[in-house]
Amino acid sequence: MTLFVDVQNMVRWVATQGPEQIIADLISYIERDFNRWQSFDKTPRVASHTAFGVIELMPTSDGELYGFKYVNGHPSNPARGYQTVTAFGVLADVHNGYPTFLSEMTVLTALRTAATSAMFARKLARTDSKVMAMIGTGSQAEFQALAFRAGLGIKTLRVWDTDPEALEKFVRNAEPMGFDVTVATSVEDCVQGVDIITTCTADKLQATILTPDLVPAGVHLNAIGGDCPGKTELHPGILAAGSTFVEYTPQTRIEGEIQQMAPDFPVTEFWEVLAGRKPGRVSSRQITIFDSVGFAIEDFSALRYVRDAVVGTNFCEDIDLVANPEDPKDLFGFVNALSPVGS
Amino acid sequence: MTLFVDVQNMVRWVATQGPEQIIADLISYIERDFNRWQSFDKTPRVASHTAFGVIELMPTSDGELYGFKYVNGHPSNPARGYQTVTAFGVLADVHNGYPTFLSEMTVLTALRTAATSAMFARKLARTDSKVMAMIGTGSQAEFQALAFRAGLGIKTLRVWDTDPEALEKFVRNAEPMGFDVTVATSVEDCVQGVDIITTCTADKLQATILTPDLVPAGVHLNAIGGDCPGKTELHPGILAAGSTFVEYTPQTRIEGEIQQMAPDFPVTEFWEVLAGRKPGRVSSRQITIFDSVGFAIEDFSALRYVRDAVVGTNFCEDIDLVANPEDPKDLFGFVNALSPVGS
Repeated sequence: MTLFVDVQNMVRWVATQGPEQIIADLISYIERDFNRWQSFDKTPRVASHTAFGVIELMPTSDGELYGFKYVNGHPSNPARGYQTVTAFGVLADVHNGYPTFLSEMTVLTALRTAATSAMFARKLARTDSKVMAMIGTGSQAEFQALAFRAGLGIKTLRVWDTDPEALEKFVRNAEPMGFDVTVATSVEDCVQGVDIITTCTADKLQATILTPDLVPAGVHLNAIGGDCPGKTELHPGILAAGSTFVEYTPQTRIEGEIQQMAPDFPVTEFWEVLAGRKPGRVSSRQITIFDSVGFAIEDFSALRYVRDAVVGTNFCEDIDLVANPEDPKDLFGFVNALSPVGS
Repeated sequence: MTLFVDVQNMVRWVATQGPEQIIADLISYIERDFNRWQSFDKTPRVASHTAFGVIELMPTSDGELYGFKYVNGHPSNPARGYQTVTAFGVLADVHNGYPTFLSEMTVLTALRTAATSAMFARKLARTDSKVMAMIGTGSQAEFQALAFRAGLGIKTLRVWDTDPEALEKFVRNAEPMGFDVTVATSVEDCVQGVDIITTCTADKLQATILTPDLVPAGVHLNAIGGDCPGKTELHPGILAAGSTFVEYTPQTRIEGEIQQMAPDFPVTEFWEVLAGRKPGRVSSRQITIFDSVGFAIEDFSALRYVRDAVVGTNFCEDIDLVANPEDPKDLFGFVNALSPVGS
């Protein structure tokens, strides 16, 4: 039997634990896996692009456990009443190849993406950071806000979105959670005096949400939205002026903000910062950039975390995903057992 | 909601329809999709190898529907009471990226692999073929036998396996279905006077199950077992002496029998034979070889077929795999709806 967490169970579980606590736990799980980076089998995700969007498979393995996520990205979905991103994921036992755990990951992806941003920012943002600008207040925004409070103590937010309803929704969700939220009047206004800038917009095009003049010295830029070929948010001058940190270079060169730059544009893989092999932030005036695209190890960590948390609880159920004939060489007998005689 | 066919429902459905009828229908579905080969997004499967075996993801899309299969291959599994191959698969709507159908595929993979073999053999075996040798009588064997009866009318089988229990199992399953089965005493004995040879053994190594002297002129060779790097069944001299037909060349060069040959060893993609662009069998003395590895389009066809067949029946159920908030930009509100106030 395969353990299954469906949407209702995921939502119930998140509600019971509280999303901020879950993000805090996820930061630990993801950081532990980034700390053993070299034990993972890594590959850029496998993408199927169409005019409507992209569907991707993101596999990885640590040699004991195998995991993958199915995820789509369809920027025009919200206008038609659908989620931009939906996802589900699987863990399997490498020793026999059997899938052991299946989970919804639409909610979980939102949580792990935010946790990853906070993990990077804890090493890259100035330690005296107090105020974050958020450009784009769609599905991911509240999760980012909670992650930066859980990971860095950020409580003061300046927010901007071209969609007034998305702004209103964010304020409606964030203020009851104790955030001090200022709705800006423009991108320029949004970034005034901030320490951290999170960009998270969804258009599948080479947009220029931010230009170099809007990114003051010392800022940490948490660039979430540029995450597939042809989809970027930052003016290349910002990348040229700052230091860029990535998850897994071969994938980020295809999908990230750095797709705009030369193939040898210098970047630092974050696991090397965690391991003390490369510096993170080196001065209070440096511009640090997390070119976030989302990597399979983060999903692996998130699936591990949920599985560990829900095993033995009523937040999961068993499903019968894998045939298990008594004689493993007699699959046909297993199938045929129910057939009428002579059929 | 996502439609789900679990193992029990798959087995009930196969028993109700009869496996031979299902294989016959699968041949049609797969052939229709091979007939529109160029409308598919094709990529070699993504494999994660360990000392224990391999776990693979096999995606494809026709621009309307996306499908992928998860499948493992663990040759040492049967000795430990597990299946060598287990699988499950998903269909998704390319327009919004939502997964719409999830199915067990351990049973379905066995059926589609056999159907694919029969589809190739109908174009490649001599039309007067009557007797098939089967070397290897593991999980796949009965499905192959049914497929060659459904597709080519083959009723006479000569079988061989190094495992006497596997042979006994095959006879137990095949004879009540009306096959005329002769248990051979060796590989040499098995191939005496046959028209078609199916090789289907599971060792993950460069084995030499067959040598050129054992493959007489005019035979069609249905080579199933060589399907991952380092795993082959045929002496290279057989490939040199015959004409090799493949599913998708870039994948077969990595995984198939032809991994033993030069990178430019000539092969024919079967869709070109179906389309009349390339010849199939050209003489009664030619040795034709299907270097089977299994390709994503076959799984796509099989998933389409099962979905079409079970929609609206009690062979499937709904599962809640994808979060569907009322406001698609308010995933957080959806998650937080159950949270205690102020959490």
